[in-house]
Amino acid sequence: MVSPLKVGLAGLGTVGASVVRLIDQQREALAARCGRPIVIVAVSARSKSKNRGINLRKMRWVSDPVKLASDPGIDVFVELIGGAGNPARAAVTAAFKAGKSVVTANKALLAHHGIALAELAEKCHVALNFEAAVCGAIPTVKTLREGLAGNSITRIYGILNGTCNYILTRMAQEKLAFAECLKEAQRLGYAEANPSFDIEGHDTAQKLSILASLTFGTRVDPESIYVEGISSITPADLNAADELGYRVKLLGVAVRTEKGIEQRVHPTMVPKESAIAQVMGVTNAVTIDAEGIAPITLVGPGAGGMATASSVISDIADIARGVRATPFGRPSAQLTISRKAPMQRHEGGYYISMLAVDKPGTAATIAKRLAQQSISLESIVQRHRGPHGGDSPKRSGPVPVILITYATTEDAVRRALGAVKRDKVILGDPQLIRIEKN
Amino acid sequence: MVSPLKVGLAGLGTVGASVVRLIDQQREALAARCGRPIVIVAVSARSKSKNRGINLRKMRWVSDPVKLASDPGIDVFVELIGGAGNPARAAVTAAFKAGKSVVTANKALLAHHGIALAELAEKCHVALNFEAAVCGAIPTVKTLREGLAGNSITRIYGILNGTCNYILTRMAQEKLAFAECLKEAQRLGYAEANPSFDIEGHDTAQKLSILASLTFGTRVDPESIYVEGISSITPADLNAADELGYRVKLLGVAVRTEKGIEQRVHPTMVPKESAIAQVMGVTNAVTIDAEGIAPITLVGPGAGGMATASSVISDIADIARGVRATPFGRPSAQLTISRKAPMQRHEGGYYISMLAVDKPGTAATIAKRLAQQSISLESIVQRHRGPHGGDSPKRSGPVPVILITYATTEDAVRRALGAVKRDKVILGDPQLIRIEKN
Repeated sequence: MVSPLKVGLAGLGTVGASVVRLIDQQREALAARCGRPIVIVAVSARSKSKNRGINLRKMRWVSDPVKLASDPGIDVFVELIGGAGNPARAAVTAAFKAGKSVVTANKALLAHHGIALAELAEKCHVALNFEAAVCGAIPTVKTLREGLAGNSITRIYGILNGTCNYILTRMAQEKLAFAECLKEAQRLGYAEANPSFDIEGHDTAQKLSILASLTFGTRVDPESIYVEGISSITPADLNAADELGYRVKLLGVAVRTEKGIEQRVHPTMVPKESAIAQVMGVTNAVTIDAEGIAPITLVGPGAGGMATASSVISDIADIARGVRATPFGRPSAQLTISRKAPMQRHEGGYYISMLAVDKPGTAATIAKRLAQQSISLESIVQRHRGPHGGDSPKRSGPVPVILITYATTEDAVRRALGAVKRDKVILGDPQLIRIEKN
Repeated sequence: MVSPLKVGLAGLGTVGASVVRLIDQQREALAARCGRPIVIVAVSARSKSKNRGINLRKMRWVSDPVKLASDPGIDVFVELIGGAGNPARAAVTAAFKAGKSVVTANKALLAHHGIALAELAEKCHVALNFEAAVCGAIPTVKTLREGLAGNSITRIYGILNGTCNYILTRMAQEKLAFAECLKEAQRLGYAEANPSFDIEGHDTAQKLSILASLTFGTRVDPESIYVEGISSITPADLNAADELGYRVKLLGVAVRTEKGIEQRVHPTMVPKESAIAQVMGVTNAVTIDAEGIAPITLVGPGAGGMATASSVISDIADIARGVRATPFGRPSAQLTISRKAPMQRHEGGYYISMLAVDKPGTAATIAKRLAQQSISLESIVQRHRGPHGGDSPKRSGPVPVILITYATTEDAVRRALGAVKRDKVILGDPQLIRIEKN
């Protein structure tokens, strides 16, 4: 009889309850796959009396998660408490020091303390697994940490936040305003009451920092990421993107450049025919570009109790099978420091939307300012808003002008638009969306 | 100083040469990721003198691959010879008996002798890794064997053959005939001179048998799979599919039913908005449905030297890191026998295209025969071929009739169409394409 893997689980929210349920349901399959049973022997959560619809009778209750983490009766500590601070951080640290491997779904903890925790895990010769911290049920961590070990990856980008993708999808499909879609997302439970962490891109940045580290061997550091959210995107932008052959997604992008690893989160125009452009609603997706091969794209549920539990259990199963990967794919001491990418040096195509003053010479002025920065245009769309629309020659106030540039630098675009604004040929601020080619 | 992992590699075709090149290029990254260097110490191939554009000077040449497999100087044997028979089979067997782990890209060998080889590998406590045997660079094996260990998977289906998907894509996009696209695929090197193994679905079946085993714990057996190729598909079918909201793909499908695991390969109509429908050209994709979560889809390059080498190296890297997974995810002794799915019991929707005789009562006869088998229709498209097209009342010979049924059984459809044929209200044989809903 092989000894079971004894699990201590802290945090019994939606994910924790799903883990308890799924381990029970999959008991036999897991034992067959791992060569030994997996048993949750002890749990910890804030309220003991709360009815979670799961059977906890065979498990010990340990009120203090930090105590549970170093409990001599467990082999693995599963941290589903959440948050970058204590008790999550203290509990994980205690587990390592007591020689226990840790499985966590806590992206904030990893984004802020990932390297220190990985160093400790390595020092204690235990595992730190976190498949569930990024993209729910999609095996992104395993793919980067193990699956593509032999590839030289040049870029990784993805839809890492279901809330934003849900909002952008509804806006595009139903021509609705951002605020309206956000409300709908909140009503459906896809967005928090305070949605700024999601919609301003910070959730995506935390996840990107973890993926970038696994991909490029950089030390996890969300502060080194340029972050821009989706709240300024309008249905008009989405409509223009559609007409030009693009869709707009909030992407996290990490790319190897001559100046180092560029990490950024921003609304992005992606070609309609790309795999990432097809990803709708709350679904997540990651595309990996490696030298010499066509891109690999992984698509699936990025959130939800069962999806997250699925990854938590695969992490536990790896430990049951005796696998101990280095947390970030290579020894922490070898991870390099990634500096904040200077966005002004970013190179790529741009979508620029402006409200041009309808007077002679406006087009010439805009064209001159772009030319002065050596920016070439892939397309120009200008529509008169006159009663007859289209090619109507009637002049009637400001005119929306949409430009798609060929690859240029952020710096050049900012300079050109600054000059255009000083020339007083446009109203308000131009909208600027970066283009990511596949 | 940690001892390097010493690799013996047999087979220096496109894949083998790419493995040699990539291991050299990624030397440092691999050492960092695996905690030890990976070194190819000896190779074997048919011709020693052939110029492959790779540097073999530091490697011993062993003419006999079976000798190489048990060479005391190697830790891992990489089999890239191909074919279900010898020398591949003998070499892999010899490697196991000498206590060496094996990495192979040989789907034929696994489809025909996978279980016997897995049993031997388990008995000898060595690894048998074969990520490269299915879907090139996409980490399908790892995802099924490790990544979704805790999930109860209900269905797996995919585009497992790039040749067929290339042909179907060209046919659909350019309204070209099958034969023409096949020729083009041959010209581009996407199809063999003798293409029947690919286009008749046998390549897909071999790969499906491996995926089904990993997914459902069945013993690999390509003979238990219902197989139908793509050579009867016409541009008219693809056009009709498009109008009805579908695309046609050659899918390998394994699904858990009440009667056991149904495994089948056939042209399939998939809803246009599904992830699998977006996959174009030689790209491969696999969708996994697990209980309680949204589907996971993995997309990427399914063939080519670099794509296949990428998976070979990730398998070698796992061995270097000391990971030894059970070949088919659970002990071979626990794998169950999968019987050939009785296709007549298959349940699903059907696309039926017929050439109906244009005389009074034809529609009523067809409708009656379907009703007698309790088949309900989702849509009917009938087009008169008269000079005015569309709703023209002019009668002018046989009329194409296209039906989409709601879920029914293969048996019912076959009976109904048999009766319709005996009624002499249609010309020739009806075309029948199964529908796979997402």
